[in-house]
Amino acid sequence: MSAASLSDIAWVAVDWGTTHLRALAMDAQGRDLAALASRQGMGALGRDEYEPVLRALLAPWLGERVLHVIACGMVGSRQGWIEAPYQPVPCPARPVRLVRAPVKHPGLRVDIVPGLRQDEPADVMRGEETQIAGFLAGNPDFDGLICLPGSHSKWARVRDNQVLSFQTSMTGELFAALSRHTVLRHSIAETGFALAAFRPGLRAMLRQPETLSLNLFSLRAQHLLGQTDPAAARARLSGLLIGGELAAMRSLLQAHPVAIIGAAHLSELYRIGLAELAVAASCHDAAEMTRAGLHAIHQTLETNG
Amino acid sequence: MSAASLSDIAWVAVDWGTTHLRALAMDAQGRDLAALASRQGMGALGRDEYEPVLRALLAPWLGERVLHVIACGMVGSRQGWIEAPYQPVPCPARPVRLVRAPVKHPGLRVDIVPGLRQDEPADVMRGEETQIAGFLAGNPDFDGLICLPGSHSKWARVRDNQVLSFQTSMTGELFAALSRHTVLRHSIAETGFALAAFRPGLRAMLRQPETLSLNLFSLRAQHLLGQTDPAAARARLSGLLIGGELAAMRSLLQAHPVAIIGAAHLSELYRIGLAELAVAASCHDAAEMTRAGLHAIHQTLETNG
Repeated sequence: MSAASLSDIAWVAVDWGTTHLRALAMDAQGRDLAALASRQGMGALGRDEYEPVLRALLAPWLGERVLHVIACGMVGSRQGWIEAPYQPVPCPARPVRLVRAPVKHPGLRVDIVPGLRQDEPADVMRGEETQIAGFLAGNPDFDGLICLPGSHSKWARVRDNQVLSFQTSMTGELFAALSRHTVLRHSIAETGFALAAFRPGLRAMLRQPETLSLNLFSLRAQHLLGQTDPAAARARLSGLLIGGELAAMRSLLQAHPVAIIGAAHLSELYRIGLAELAVAASCHDAAEMTRAGLHAIHQTLETNG
Repeated sequence: MSAASLSDIAWVAVDWGTTHLRALAMDAQGRDLAALASRQGMGALGRDEYEPVLRALLAPWLGERVLHVIACGMVGSRQGWIEAPYQPVPCPARPVRLVRAPVKHPGLRVDIVPGLRQDEPADVMRGEETQIAGFLAGNPDFDGLICLPGSHSKWARVRDNQVLSFQTSMTGELFAALSRHTVLRHSIAETGFALAAFRPGLRAMLRQPETLSLNLFSLRAQHLLGQTDPAAARARLSGLLIGGELAAMRSLLQAHPVAIIGAAHLSELYRIGLAELAVAASCHDAAEMTRAGLHAIHQTLETNG
């Protein structure tokens, strides 16, 4: 980056999760000028490592002025740089107060976005609230459900720019644990996806959501009896787990429109699943919603001083 | 064992599973005279290792005569000593034909009990059929469901001394994978059991069996929000998974009496769960049913020559 454009950097948007660290240099108008990323996620860092890791990543953007960073994600967890305590729902998706991280060297100011908590039923989120804030910045009148599929899929009920309540399904992590750490590992391909096998799994669980643990062993038995192959089993497992998640959300789904925020492939699987329930859903890119959310939060800070 | 009692050994009953090898010296009347065991289960052995491992274990019992061994369990799987092909259900729990294992050295004759298969819905069992045969030997008129809880819990519908059909729930392996290989590992104690937390988990799943993946993440959230402790979370996870299994079996449970064959602690949890559904169940020791099953199979062989 040239010295000229360095002066255009108004602040830096950072998404710092368990396994990734991504930074965008933003100009005063909310456009991103440049991107930097590393794999130094919160899961691998001790408390004293955050500042040096961030300084090393952002070195090309550090200059005379203090660089202002707004960061969301697991960086604000109890095991992260500094705990940014959860805000209780219902509350605005876009927080008013951020938590200042302790920085030893001058030239850097880091504010961390708090997560959300719900006491009954117990639930927490950290990172997804920023994606929700980004979506709502562009869709302030949305009254419905936001689905954020992933390791821990979130379903947030939003209205009037507020998160009213939310629920988490351990779908992605269940998929990983089952396909890597159970007998199913012998019957499930490591990659590939046969969409033709996804739908029957999905439908089986929408029809009889109580049969998950039976359907799981069937994947193994079908393989032993030569009725399926590992690529089909991988897609069927995905269908079973996403179908189970949608079955759990069914009563809410029938009453509200749905927006999906996630990676393209996974969002499409959820869209297919929702279509089985005659629920139409719009799809939105997760990285883009994070950027929009951090921008909206930055604007609120500017407004509040 | 003295030379005198060595001559009393009529045959040897062997239970050879994935992680264990257990042998009982049996007399002609079906009483066990002595026991030997090792941890050399099928999961750790190559095809050529079965015979030397068995000879080493049974060395104290080897004499002038050929020692006849009847073995059940994963030793007869495709990855075992020799494949004893599954018998299709419906069929008698007590098989007529066993599969002779290839033995290089004289002095040993080894017959392996085949497992059971079901084509629709796909399912397999190997080892549990012998426990079922043992139970039916003592309860020939039983017309109901046999529950064999474990890593892969089996539910067999039996009548007229036949296994009509069966289903497998991956309950025990789900418990292990979730508590060791997901984020729940931070919130679940490695040992201990709080029965007071088991029942609410059980009831939650009997009431809303479609909510498993939501309830799983709640365990993590409850811990983060200080609402529970790891020992209670361990018992609640057990309750959720056993409750989910019982919910899946519910329609069958309401029509049939139930016999549970398993380890004492686990059987008791299933008995408690069944009592919630107003289903009474008798409990039977798994090792004892295996012994009785191998004895019944041996008797059938004797009769058939």
